[in-house]
Amino acid sequence: MAQNIYDRAEFFEGYSQLPRSVHGLAGAPEWPAIRALLPDLAGRQVVDLGCGYGWFSRWALEHGAASVVGFDLSEKMLARAREMTARPEADYRIADLETLELPAASFDFAYSSLAFHYIADFGRLARTIHAGLRPGSQFVFTIEHPIYMAPSQPGWQTDAAGTRIWPLDQYAVEGERRTDWLAKGVVKYHRTLGTTLNILIEAGFRIARVVEWSPSDEEVALQPALAEERDRPMMVIIAAGR
Amino acid sequence: MAQNIYDRAEFFEGYSQLPRSVHGLAGAPEWPAIRALLPDLAGRQVVDLGCGYGWFSRWALEHGAASVVGFDLSEKMLARAREMTARPEADYRIADLETLELPAASFDFAYSSLAFHYIADFGRLARTIHAGLRPGSQFVFTIEHPIYMAPSQPGWQTDAAGTRIWPLDQYAVEGERRTDWLAKGVVKYHRTLGTTLNILIEAGFRIARVVEWSPSDEEVALQPALAEERDRPMMVIIAAGR
Repeated sequence: MAQNIYDRAEFFEGYSQLPRSVHGLAGAPEWPAIRALLPDLAGRQVVDLGCGYGWFSRWALEHGAASVVGFDLSEKMLARAREMTARPEADYRIADLETLELPAASFDFAYSSLAFHYIADFGRLARTIHAGLRPGSQFVFTIEHPIYMAPSQPGWQTDAAGTRIWPLDQYAVEGERRTDWLAKGVVKYHRTLGTTLNILIEAGFRIARVVEWSPSDEEVALQPALAEERDRPMMVIIAAGR
Repeated sequence: MAQNIYDRAEFFEGYSQLPRSVHGLAGAPEWPAIRALLPDLAGRQVVDLGCGYGWFSRWALEHGAASVVGFDLSEKMLARAREMTARPEADYRIADLETLELPAASFDFAYSSLAFHYIADFGRLARTIHAGLRPGSQFVFTIEHPIYMAPSQPGWQTDAAGTRIWPLDQYAVEGERRTDWLAKGVVKYHRTLGTTLNILIEAGFRIARVVEWSPSDEEVALQPALAEERDRPMMVIIAAGR
């Protein structure tokens, strides 16, 4: 079973104060880039994997989706999601993405934001999603970038020449990484970008777009702290076709 | 026009002494991983882009290819290639991959080893290759990995904790990189992995496999210096379908 950090008090408290928790999609700097990859959702049956507070699920319904099923491991998250989007077309269910089952060919669009890097068996999950989507569907998701996750010391350093550097090592060494982020000992699973893409291809998806997210000049002007994303990407956005 | 470093005396001299120049494919540690992605070449008409000494072209003919056309910018390379593979099925021609033209739908397989990262306009080249291949063809190539190419100081460092690190910066800053490798001021073009894949997809290719090459335990046991490839990949191998 996946580690449930979200229901730990210290994590939930910290998480609930993140800009993306307070402001929803508008608080996530990568959202415009994700949005550019989304198909028209009108009339679609959407599944949102690791839905959190349901910000995306709500957005999908506001943009014409026929229904949304949001899965999350955290009861606290789901409680907030149900409160925020109390509509009959929104169905929020507890589930561990490591063992998730989906009804066959039941959805037209699958979405996930920053959840899959907590999953040890991404192959199983990719096959489950593929089987749960109807032919012709799209799948868009974000994960922590493997460049961000790989290092033994994942934090900025300044080298002897005074340059801010990201100390990359063990990029090819896949598997568990533990970090302290909002809570101690958060477990994530490092896979190279190639491995993630190959798992999708083996599951039957066609890769449509790979965006190693970095901010535009305008975004950096508005939020100067984002400039470091140009030195090493924190997230990757992948769009695939079923 | 692409920079022709190969015909500079100092570069050619250094290049001709590399293990992959002396021993051919067997001298390239990534060759077993490339070979695993190759289709059966029997009867195929092959194009080899940046063919160098023609090691791959010769291998393709030895493995049943009907013909090979090898393109390279360097007269010196081509002279050696013609000498090494003096067969009527092997046709070695001078060409700049920046301005290459191929006859439409004339090849069944395209190959390139460590050449495309010298090309400024990869979009033009990808469209040229797509048009030159027949439907159902495969395309396998290697490039320098963008993690390897990106940094302002692309060399190992040891951090304060004594860890060997690859000082990544400016990963998202695409464009020219100049390094001194065999000769001074070698010009390369940095693109993120996502950009390379998106260019292929836009040109009409279907991504089949992305391998960020790293050595196996056996390969490291035989050649301990390869262990550093696990910390940061130097090459990426991409297989695509037309």
